[in-house]
Amino acid sequence: MEMILVYTTFPDWESAEKVVKALLERKLIACANLREHRAFYWWQGKIEEGKEVGAILKTEVEKWRELRDAIREMHPYEVPLIARIEVDKVNDEYAEWLEKVLS
Amino acid sequence: MEMILVYTTFPDWESAEKVVKALLERKLIACANLREHRAFYWWQGKIEEGKEVGAILKTEVEKWRELRDAIREMHPYEVPLIARIEVDKVNDEYAEWLEKVLS
Amino acid sequence: MEMILVYTTFPDWESAEKVVKALLERKLIACANLREHRAFYWWQGKIEEGKEVGAILKTEVEKWRELRDAIREMHPYEVPLIARIEVDKVNDEYAEWLEKVLS
Repeated sequence: MEMILVYTTFPDWESAEKVVKALLERKLIACANLREHRAFYWWQGKIEEGKEVGAILKTEVEKWRELRDAIREMHPYEVPLIARIEVDKVNDEYAEWLEKVLS
Repeated sequence: MEMILVYTTFPDWESAEKVVKALLERKLIACANLREHRAFYWWQGKIEEGKEVGAILKTEVEKWRELRDAIREMHPYEVPLIARIEVDKVNDEYAEWLEKVLS
Repeated sequence: MEMILVYTTFPDWESAEKVVKALLERKLIACANLREHRAFYWWQGKIEEGKEVGAILKTEVEKWRELRDAIREMHPYEVPLIARIEVDKVNDEYAEWLEKVLS
């Protein structure tokens, strides 16, 4: 079992919760941590600013393709971020829990 | 010196602060960043939701085993997450500070 | 195109916004996510605590040196953290957007 974190951001709580719950129901993730932030970014030639909800998703590497495709399909953004971060090491009991939940 | 980030989550501010301060006192970490989030996760066959406090811990790779074991011992959760993330590069002055603090 | 995340922390919203906007204007980053946290850390032999603003910066690896040096120059801290995290995989449409924005 190789654990990964996936970082994505939503325009609001409603869309964030909807997508995250669907990912949980499909067992593409075992857990999600959501919190608000302010985003500053380039969009169509201008620097924009807005509130967002960022999500850290916890899953195993085998789920990556299906997870990425599922987020892409459900995501309200035209160009969402779906970034995969390697978890170098994780405690055994969490790895076992993750494996059990996702199987 | 190789820097790592360790991500863990607590049920509340009280336990988060208690554990983080103990880790600082034992010089297992040099710094911790704590903020609230909402967690969505599978638990005993159901999708649950709750507030948590997430912690990003900053330390060097040599501390990993002792840090992981110390968190495990003090953590209020039955199955805490203790995830190690590699820091690919860091500015020299921070690396030096980290090394000095942790020695 | 190889995407990276860069994590840095500021003493307040004012300095965070100022630096982040300058990095965007210089096209050293394409997007930044900012949120408050509480920091606990060693400083001059004592454990200190304070509010901070943490920033996750999104860019490509080719920008790293220039970005690091720009943050260092503008940052109000004597010893800021400028930590580079590898993005293992990212969805193609975001990678294309990132490349376009930063070119």
